[in-house]
Amino acid sequence: MKPLLVQFAGGETGTWDVLSVEAVVGAQLPRPQRLAISEGDARAATTSALWELRGSTSHQRYVQRAEAEVLRRTQAALGRAEASRAAFIPIRKRDEWWSLAQDERRAIFEDRSQHIASTLRFLPAIARRLHHSRELGEPFDFLTWFEYAEEHTALFDELVGTLRRTEEWKYVDREVELRLARC
Amino acid sequence: MKPLLVQFAGGETGTWDVLSVEAVVGAQLPRPQRLAISEGDARAATTSALWELRGSTSHQRYVQRAEAEVLRRTQAALGRAEASRAAFIPIRKRDEWWSLAQDERRAIFEDRSQHIASTLRFLPAIARRLHHSRELGEPFDFLTWFEYAEEHTALFDELVGTLRRTEEWKYVDREVELRLARC
Repeated sequence: MKPLLVQFAGGETGTWDVLSVEAVVGAQLPRPQRLAISEGDARAATTSALWELRGSTSHQRYVQRAEAEVLRRTQAALGRAEASRAAFIPIRKRDEWWSLAQDERRAIFEDRSQHIASTLRFLPAIARRLHHSRELGEPFDFLTWFEYAEEHTALFDELVGTLRRTEEWKYVDREVELRLARC
Repeated sequence: MKPLLVQFAGGETGTWDVLSVEAVVGAQLPRPQRLAISEGDARAATTSALWELRGSTSHQRYVQRAEAEVLRRTQAALGRAEASRAAFIPIRKRDEWWSLAQDERRAIFEDRSQHIASTLRFLPAIARRLHHSRELGEPFDFLTWFEYAEEHTALFDELVGTLRRTEEWKYVDREVELRLARC
């Protein structure tokens, strides 16, 4: 439960091969060959990095108790042997989002966009971890990380497509999507 | 609305004289002569600091729209000429708090502890700013800062007394209170 600081470094080293880098909304990130991930104090050697992004895992901001129980039973862990593919998606939301009150953000996030309910069916196949960056003075607000088996690539396409059609996503003003394969 | 990183350095320099340091719950902080506050990239010279604590302002986590409007109309700004007294109160909450779901934390914070409603009457006199530290890997979860005129010292005592009697405060496992006077 303690927050874990995670650094994602795009460069020439790392355990993930970069297959593609797409600017979904807003400015692109330079395309690296590899992505290196380091957790906590174990800072990766990043002399060759084109860019480094940092985020911290944290408590859940919108999930209610009943949803938390369903998520706990449904979610897969990171690091499964079969999960040879991954996606790294840094996201920033507009100031307008951050000036909304908690009940307004919750209403958009779940009541109207069904961020939790509509993505549950993807979660046994697609593991995910959210990292918060906004309070760290980073260029993105969130760094999202997903892992899945190669055979579930189309399912992952469907997951991100579902989210990008929501009202919540109207508040996203920068989004870059990296697809990766374990080296 | 952008998060602002703020550093509080307890040492021999700074614009606030330290009048007292009290460990309310858990371990004490060493008592400095002065407190120096720096915002953003303007890092204070801290060669003499006994300790440095960092936190970031952020969006509101529990406040609903109707409450936000009342708060906006009621709250005083920092830096008022008459506000010659201040308090700096770093707080940490137990892991049990952070593992609660959003609806459970909101119910304790406001429905049962009335953190917002019961403190409104203090806000025209007592200005406050909350800084989030948990995701920065800091020893405290929050750094709270209050400013008020000397004549409102008893009112401030009442404010912190009110909060410390709430159900929310049962989750606080470390709290240190510094009282300060503008140099």
